[in-house]
Amino acid sequence: MKVGIIGAAGRMGRILIEATLANPDTTLAAAVDVPGSSLIGADAGELVGQGACGVLLVDDLAKVVNEADVFIDFTVPEATVKNLEVCRAAGTRLVIGTTGLDDEQKAAVRAAGDDIAICFAPNYSIGVNLCFKLLETAAQIMGDEVDIEVIEAHHRHKIDAPSGTALRMGEVVAQTLGRDLSECAVYGREGRTGERERHTIGFETIRAGDIVGDHTVMFAAEGERVEITHKASSRMSFGRGAVRAAAWLGRHDKGLFDMQDVLGLAGESAGWGKA
Amino acid sequence: MKVGIIGAAGRMGRILIEATLANPDTTLAAAVDVPGSSLIGADAGELVGQGACGVLLVDDLAKVVNEADVFIDFTVPEATVKNLEVCRAAGTRLVIGTTGLDDEQKAAVRAAGDDIAICFAPNYSIGVNLCFKLLETAAQIMGDEVDIEVIEAHHRHKIDAPSGTALRMGEVVAQTLGRDLSECAVYGREGRTGERERHTIGFETIRAGDIVGDHTVMFAAEGERVEITHKASSRMSFGRGAVRAAAWLGRHDKGLFDMQDVLGLAGESAGWGKA
Amino acid sequence: MKVGIIGAAGRMGRILIEATLANPDTTLAAAVDVPGSSLIGADAGELVGQGACGVLLVDDLAKVVNEADVFIDFTVPEATVKNLEVCRAAGTRLVIGTTGLDDEQKAAVRAAGDDIAICFAPNYSIGVNLCFKLLETAAQIMGDEVDIEVIEAHHRHKIDAPSGTALRMGEVVAQTLGRDLSECAVYGREGRTGERERHTIGFETIRAGDIVGDHTVMFAAEGERVEITHKASSRMSFGRGAVRAAAWLGRHDKGLFDMQDVLGLAGESAGWGKA
Amino acid sequence: MKVGIIGAAGRMGRILIEATLANPDTTLAAAVDVPGSSLIGADAGELVGQGACGVLLVDDLAKVVNEADVFIDFTVPEATVKNLEVCRAAGTRLVIGTTGLDDEQKAAVRAAGDDIAICFAPNYSIGVNLCFKLLETAAQIMGDEVDIEVIEAHHRHKIDAPSGTALRMGEVVAQTLGRDLSECAVYGREGRTGERERHTIGFETIRAGDIVGDHTVMFAAEGERVEITHKASSRMSFGRGAVRAAAWLGRHDKGLFDMQDVLGLAGESAGWGKA
Repeated sequence: MKVGIIGAAGRMGRILIEATLANPDTTLAAAVDVPGSSLIGADAGELVGQGACGVLLVDDLAKVVNEADVFIDFTVPEATVKNLEVCRAAGTRLVIGTTGLDDEQKAAVRAAGDDIAICFAPNYSIGVNLCFKLLETAAQIMGDEVDIEVIEAHHRHKIDAPSGTALRMGEVVAQTLGRDLSECAVYGREGRTGERERHTIGFETIRAGDIVGDHTVMFAAEGERVEITHKASSRMSFGRGAVRAAAWLGRHDKGLFDMQDVLGLAGESAGWGKA
Repeated sequence: MKVGIIGAAGRMGRILIEATLANPDTTLAAAVDVPGSSLIGADAGELVGQGACGVLLVDDLAKVVNEADVFIDFTVPEATVKNLEVCRAAGTRLVIGTTGLDDEQKAAVRAAGDDIAICFAPNYSIGVNLCFKLLETAAQIMGDEVDIEVIEAHHRHKIDAPSGTALRMGEVVAQTLGRDLSECAVYGREGRTGERERHTIGFETIRAGDIVGDHTVMFAAEGERVEITHKASSRMSFGRGAVRAAAWLGRHDKGLFDMQDVLGLAGESAGWGKA
Repeated sequence: MKVGIIGAAGRMGRILIEATLANPDTTLAAAVDVPGSSLIGADAGELVGQGACGVLLVDDLAKVVNEADVFIDFTVPEATVKNLEVCRAAGTRLVIGTTGLDDEQKAAVRAAGDDIAICFAPNYSIGVNLCFKLLETAAQIMGDEVDIEVIEAHHRHKIDAPSGTALRMGEVVAQTLGRDLSECAVYGREGRTGERERHTIGFETIRAGDIVGDHTVMFAAEGERVEITHKASSRMSFGRGAVRAAAWLGRHDKGLFDMQDVLGLAGESAGWGKA
Repeated sequence: MKVGIIGAAGRMGRILIEATLANPDTTLAAAVDVPGSSLIGADAGELVGQGACGVLLVDDLAKVVNEADVFIDFTVPEATVKNLEVCRAAGTRLVIGTTGLDDEQKAAVRAAGDDIAICFAPNYSIGVNLCFKLLETAAQIMGDEVDIEVIEAHHRHKIDAPSGTALRMGEVVAQTLGRDLSECAVYGREGRTGERERHTIGFETIRAGDIVGDHTVMFAAEGERVEITHKASSRMSFGRGAVRAAAWLGRHDKGLFDMQDVLGLAGESAGWGKA
């Protein structure tokens, strides 16, 4: 698959370039950023410190939209919606990693799925999506004989808590056990708390340094505990998953998909749910 | 289920007493140890620091074999084989946690399964048996794009390395990925090793202090890793599983079973295999 | 040193017996519990599963107070105050691990220090007391360029949060950095928290299963973090420290001491402070 | 301090640019790379995705050697030796992070210290250098009552094992306890090992994924363990330390220094030793 990267000069864009160059199923075919950057015209390979690859940064998606089978876009909602229309008009597939779309923008994504193949997921990490499945299995076997705690850690700049991934992990466990997360979640403990109530699910949120994103779900019984841990060491986790999605999209000419589709992980409770 | 404990005055026996008292599906009905101990005649409840429960330690299984529906035996092979015959003659079920049986002794266990219901497993931990299933799923999804390492830690008195559980975890992963563990296992790294080869499975064995038993299997890709961890905090992990097996055995009058049967975890590669 | 154990048939008492038998500098000389237990008269060695040692449990401290150089008491405040008077009258040293003494009872302990040597500490773990020192050093070097978080985990039965040890760890760090813990502590994060403020110290409290007590203090900078972790795997951590204190008390005929004295760890901020 | 970066377009060079821009005590004054790169002439700030800072990449150190108070060089030995002479002739300080210098090249570094201030260290991480001190303290207090294990993890491309940092950690502990690491180190465990010998120091080496560098030293006693952990999340750990060293070098006009000098961590055994 020939892959193009949108927002190529940004942090995530550079990672997507690296991931595309590293994946044996993909070749880098285009790289786009905004007009005015001193990096327009630079070689995308040199930009990521890997030697020239012959793909130069251009300042307009329309110039290169036909040169790739699929584009990957991790930018901002307004830009993504415009890029979506350019791809739709050209019949080029799109992997969308942009977050924060409002309802109207999400509707535009769904509508474009009538004409082109789109992957749209809140989290492209293969490992995170795997963990949802593992959590479902663990909750089924350990059941109500364990205490369940979700510990997550992110960098100091994160402004919300717990992370969306941590909350989704808690939901997967709660659904499997027939609990309502909004009723059983505990977000902090201080003072005279009394003994732990079995049905609660505790969240402990660490904010420190530059931690990309760690999540552990602990199932603790008398005498033993099982922990399922995901550690993101760089945005490359998203980059690899997005490029795997881009390669997988080649099987389809149109339709709206997510990472559960890409990884072949079925099951209602174990995923993020459709956008 | 009325449960009797063999080797009741030993470390594991006391834990089995506690686990039986704690499980809502079981009641303690008998406790046996060897003749000569100053604890013969003591109350089993007081022995474990929980107040008298009315069951006094006796020095001969034959005296109480009809007072319980099932006995649990975590002792030594010679004793277990004798206890097996006593139970078989009385028609009383048996959960066997004794390890180190030779081929002849194992054959005796299998033969007794014709007359009574027996659970015989190398590891009664619910969490360990769950982890085998989680490892199978993780290996399927992460596949050959990850480096796999098995890190285990046990107390200073353990005389073999890696632990049987760690090796079995490696085998589950290797089988799922179509590898031969005897060819891809690496047990230590020193000096000029060169870059890691993708198909290897590394084992790192920690021996320190009184660690009951920790196991982590790491699946590490570029940008992220998934870790599946089991931590035994006390022999109560085995105790709880053995008592769960004892309660489950009530469904059967004869036959030979293991923990995969007890937990309802099917699948060829994910278990310990039949004895 | 000849050591006697008070409350010998209880959980902590049995551990103190084991620790005394294991320490090359101490011998077990007496074991006391309350009248009426079926274990009075049992051999203390057999009680802990290690074979007879010749010391039988008696039901009154006065009967054996002269047989040991020092007694160890981890019981309840009312009993401890009575035992204190028996030891004081006999001129026998005392290590006190009992917690929850009121002001009057603490005054009695201090007063007895005029006549006998006493060690009285809120936590006898050698590792915990070491960690206070390590935390002081780490805070000095890492200074205000790091985010500091205290993560602790305890069993489901613990009724307060965070643990006293976690709070003391936070205080050691705060004092070293010139901060007031009551102003900078954060005990939970939920919702739109905004970016982390550098001067805060976060506490994350896990309550699950039978965790004896884990504490980690994280110092996280851009690009790296240092973590200082203490894990109690059993009450033997307190047992070993108490027996080390008992052996060390032999150097003194009277006076009131704590674990910082025993371990030779000086420094105002790094300890628990005097009782 | 005005800081210049050598090898500015490389991975480490970009990190040094970021660290210099982030440190309140330093300003970026120059950026040098090799002739021929398409990035010569680019703005150093834009190169690291932070917006123009007015410093353009040049292709020759000699052109800008007088524009900075100190340069930082993490390149290759041959280049470093040439850069050393340019700096020496100009009277400009130099922080050297290049590794793999041979004896002659090290002698050149020492000689240049007669004329200019140089910092030369095998590892610029503040956290790693702190850990050496923490390990010394922990070994002193825990002494021979604990089992000591060094667990380290690095990315799949690392070709030697254990890491130099892990070995140095082992040496610090061994020296503190009066042991000879070459006699007590254990690098792998397999088969019938027998019980652990107390005086050994075990190394467990994990190679997986893109792990930047994790090190844990465990001191495990009966009942508790203390762990001192360093985790490098990015090369920024070295970048921050190198820039801190650059700022600190302003106190000196000549002389050869290392990170123990920069951090004020005295003591013979706790550092890397002089080059």
